[in-house]
Amino acid sequence: MKIYLAGPDVFLPNAVAMGRRKRDLCERYGHEGLYPLDNEVDPRAKDASLRIFQGNQDMMDIADAIIANLTPFRGPSADAGTIFELGYMAGWRTPEGLRKICLGYSNAPAPYATRVANFTDLKKTSEGQLLDPDDMIVEDFGHADNLMIVHALEERGHPLMTASEIKDWDDLSLFEECLKLLDKRKGPNHA
Amino acid sequence: MKIYLAGPDVFLPNAVAMGRRKRDLCERYGHEGLYPLDNEVDPRAKDASLRIFQGNQDMMDIADAIIANLTPFRGPSADAGTIFELGYMAGWRTPEGLRKICLGYSNAPAPYATRVANFTDLKKTSEGQLLDPDDMIVEDFGHADNLMIVHALEERGHPLMTASEIKDWDDLSLFEECLKLLDKRKGPNHA
Repeated sequence: MKIYLAGPDVFLPNAVAMGRRKRDLCERYGHEGLYPLDNEVDPRAKDASLRIFQGNQDMMDIADAIIANLTPFRGPSADAGTIFELGYMAGWRTPEGLRKICLGYSNAPAPYATRVANFTDLKKTSEGQLLDPDDMIVEDFGHADNLMIVHALEERGHPLMTASEIKDWDDLSLFEECLKLLDKRKGPNHA
Repeated sequence: MKIYLAGPDVFLPNAVAMGRRKRDLCERYGHEGLYPLDNEVDPRAKDASLRIFQGNQDMMDIADAIIANLTPFRGPSADAGTIFELGYMAGWRTPEGLRKICLGYSNAPAPYATRVANFTDLKKTSEGQLLDPDDMIVEDFGHADNLMIVHALEERGHPLMTASEIKDWDDLSLFEECLKLLDKRKGPNHA
């Protein structure tokens, strides 16, 4: 099946090589990997940004599944573009009501609340609610990220695959675990 | 029409009052606001997190439009749950191919690259590419956030409404501008 390869991998210094490695792994498991266009469009070209968006959207529309790299990026949550794309795939359905398969992994093991605590001081109310310095609630369900992301994966594919210890950006072992999960499924666009 | 009211407003100390204010504003413009369930489910209840997800997803499925509060939250990008929901609404379509209307606003004026620079030191390559301390590329198209978010709004509704100076979380003037934009549209689920 066709798999959209979402992730901040496109921002890595070795982004193009990472795309190749991910596509090669897909092929080894009998699938076709679709890697976002960010590195194929010259950023100085006219409408580069819009062309990347439209190309990525076109790939998502034809993909049967998404494997999203949800490793935290520039903050306690995953990369904004990757989260958008996971949402896009979770909301998408065929006219017959069939859905895309949504899988994701994170190379960092800590739950969301712990990661927020690494950035800022948290306090607990007498009712046990966790607050940040602006008194804004910190989701504290033990999830790796926002609950919408976590439950969307459970409902559309498989619970988020989380590393038991911090792994490098280059480590694709959990990405490969996602590919193995796909192989156990009956086929694309299952309900 | 029915409008899903996405945003980290649900994490504010006055989250319930904010929901009421947003719903009241919707009503004033002849619409019905659907506010995420985060504050209606007791976080200590069994399956609270899953119930919030399912409730929010049900509301998104019946909504004609989304107005997303994309003000930066705990990092240089918008709130993870809000971005997921914007993606969900952007990917969604009826069996006839009709789409949801996607609108969004940010109460912070700075472009993404400037916001990243507020968190960490950036450098520029000889080709003019902006890199963070991990040598990861910083998107530098002058957008307020990741290009997928920005262009999805342009394509499905209206360009992101951005404040000309920083506004408080309580300031709903740009939210109201989004409601006025909706009124100029022909109807729900336009192509």
